Amino acid sequence: MRLSAIHMLAASAAPVRAFVASAAPSVARFAGGSSGIFSGARQGLRGAVLASKARPVSRTMRMANSQRLGDPIGQMMDKTDVFIFDCDGVIWKGDSLIEGVPSVLDRLRQAGKRIFFVTNNSTKSRKGYKSKFDSLGLSVEPEEIFSSSFAAAAYLEQTRFKDTGKKVYIVGEVGIEEELDLIGVPHFGGPSDGSKGVELKPGFALPHDENVGAVVVGFDRMINYYKIQYAQLCINENPGCEFIATNTDAVTHLTDAQEWAGNGAMVGAIKGCTGVEPTIVGKPGPLMIDYIIQKYNVERSRICMVGDRLDTDVLFGANNGLMSILTLSGVTTEEKLLSPENKINPDYYVNSINDFFPFYT
Amino acid sequence: MRLSAIHMLAASAAPVRAFVASAAPSVARFAGGSSGIFSGARQGLRGAVLASKARPVSRTMRMANSQRLGDPIGQMMDKTDVFIFDCDGVIWKGDSLIEGVPSVLDRLRQAGKRIFFVTNNSTKSRKGYKSKFDSLGLSVEPEEIFSSSFAAAAYLEQTRFKDTGKKVYIVGEVGIEEELDLIGVPHFGGPSDGSKGVELKPGFALPHDENVGAVVVGFDRMINYYKIQYAQLCINENPGCEFIATNTDAVTHLTDAQEWAGNGAMVGAIKGCTGVEPTIVGKPGPLMIDYIIQKYNVERSRICMVGDRLDTDVLFGANNGLMSILTLSGVTTEEKLLSPENKINPDYYVNSINDFFPFYT
Ligand SMILES: [Mg+2]
Ligand SMILES: [Mg+2]
Repeated sequence: MRLSAIHMLAASAAPVRAFVASAAPSVARFAGGSSGIFSGARQGLRGAVLASKARPVSRTMRMANSQRLGDPIGQMMDKTDVFIFDCDGVIWKGDSLIEGVPSVLDRLRQAGKRIFFVTNNSTKSRKGYKSKFDSLGLSVEPEEIFSSSFAAAAYLEQTRFKDTGKKVYIVGEVGIEEELDLIGVPHFGGPSDGSKGVELKPGFALPHDENVGAVVVGFDRMINYYKIQYAQLCINENPGCEFIATNTDAVTHLTDAQEWAGNGAMVGAIKGCTGVEPTIVGKPGPLMIDYIIQKYNVERSRICMVGDRLDTDVLFGANNGLMSILTLSGVTTEEKLLSPENKINPDYYVNSINDFFPFYT
Repeated sequence: MRLSAIHMLAASAAPVRAFVASAAPSVARFAGGSSGIFSGARQGLRGAVLASKARPVSRTMRMANSQRLGDPIGQMMDKTDVFIFDCDGVIWKGDSLIEGVPSVLDRLRQAGKRIFFVTNNSTKSRKGYKSKFDSLGLSVEPEEIFSSSFAAAAYLEQTRFKDTGKKVYIVGEVGIEEELDLIGVPHFGGPSDGSKGVELKPGFALPHDENVGAVVVGFDRMINYYKIQYAQLCINENPGCEFIATNTDAVTHLTDAQEWAGNGAMVGAIKGCTGVEPTIVGKPGPLMIDYIIQKYNVERSRICMVGDRLDTDVLFGANNGLMSILTLSGVTTEEKLLSPENKINPDYYVNSINDFFPFYT
């Protein structure tokens, strides 16, 4: 309901609050009063109300210079060949599709844009995500989906882990298992260790496999002390054993009714007992974007990252030389975005990705 | 067996490696070549071999000036009214008493020294520890025992938590429950939530008590996602809710056969999903030492902290203006202590606390 209200707002004659360039005191201000990409140029709505939202552009003078007079949506579309969408909070919330999304994706494809979905959720494989997209009535190819479970496997491929003959210990769920199966890397742990405990009689040592060369830590609803200890033993006692985190999101949307502790908890547990910093293969690390650029031969500066989190999605864009759009349809409020404490600024922000096509609805 | 060998070394005519002042390039060096408190003064053993261990004293010129000529053990004893012993790795390892310890404690008491035991282990209360001491044949008073479970309760008393009428959510074991019972603070969670899970049907929100004013996180062998999520909700959603960590030790000795993931894992999990730094009531925080100084009216500079960890015990001493002795009978090797990477240096170090009385055995 909330989303359709916002959607109406965007489609109504009232000035829309959307696509506002971000605050950064030391950079150039817009010459004009309006910085909204939806500043109503087509309908002549630009002016007084949006002026109150005018903010300096943080990242590109180019944007600041060109945005004043033109059609910001059209300009953004012109500059973008590839849209990379975060999923949770952008496409869906928990198990609920965000209203209007299928139509937005269709129109982007019709406009010749390439689309990828990048999610830090590691509980599903690409194949698992394909089923989720299908069940929500969204038609996507598995190759368009970059989950952090896939990223973990891509990292192991890139680093020729298979050639070492070693195994992976998994703290995480089935998505990681399925992706490792696809690249032929032996693994154990994960769901199978979900109900294991430790015996604490004097003299007991938990045996661990010295041939584990990497511990992959993803979100794990069945996290327990056995897995934590097993991971600790591998990382601390197996020489050269890697600690790979699919992501470190503090919270996640298991359901859309509340925020749920995310993989930041599982990774924090393993960091806390080893003192080792993980290699992060998901956002905001560069791995997935480098993979897309290389595999699909696209130009970095013509990629736009669209997400609902400042510290993963927008940072992921900024770290990787992409354009970025924050959508308020997920975990980040406008208040948080615009607060002086926030140092991570997107190029634009929208209420939801429906705001990409406000004039056609 | 290893310990008795070390003990023989200490008591033998061979030069003992013990009580070595610490390395810090920018401070004064000893005038002489020997910095070993066991430099063999009584037996005339001082000289060549120990000279190779000569290191500058890090913290007090007083020590550097006085140590060269005298009887280091005697001096250390003369300067100390109170010994604070860490337990695991000093008094026992897991469930095994370290050989010779009862006699060392008896002799210290006979010499009029006050003794306290300070442990970051929160799984037992003071009362629970008293039983453990008893079972190992060590006669101590409950008031001599400062567990981090007690410290959590002492912190809540100090901050008048009871007056708020709020409750505590526990990630941890029975020690914290028992200590909170003693101060009359209502609590829940802990062992009772050890087998709880979360339902993940669409729309489900885990209900949480908005009257939780503090989450206390201690070592918890039954850590699970339910507890992590419950703690996250309290800390993130209850205004003013405190996050109290009994300690953040990376590893601990559940058994003496291997190192076990410590409360660093549980605290890391809660940090990782909240982004909040905890208040640490155990070592190396000041709470327990301030409590002892105030309650027993002892002089800070006449307290000597004896422990087996650099980053908790020795840092605890340094942070609190105490003398400190590292014992190699626990988790820290001499190699680690003396490595250039180590920046935390005790005033002295010993093989085990048996080295306090090498000439009488
Ligand atoms: Mg998201
Ligand atoms: Mg210890």
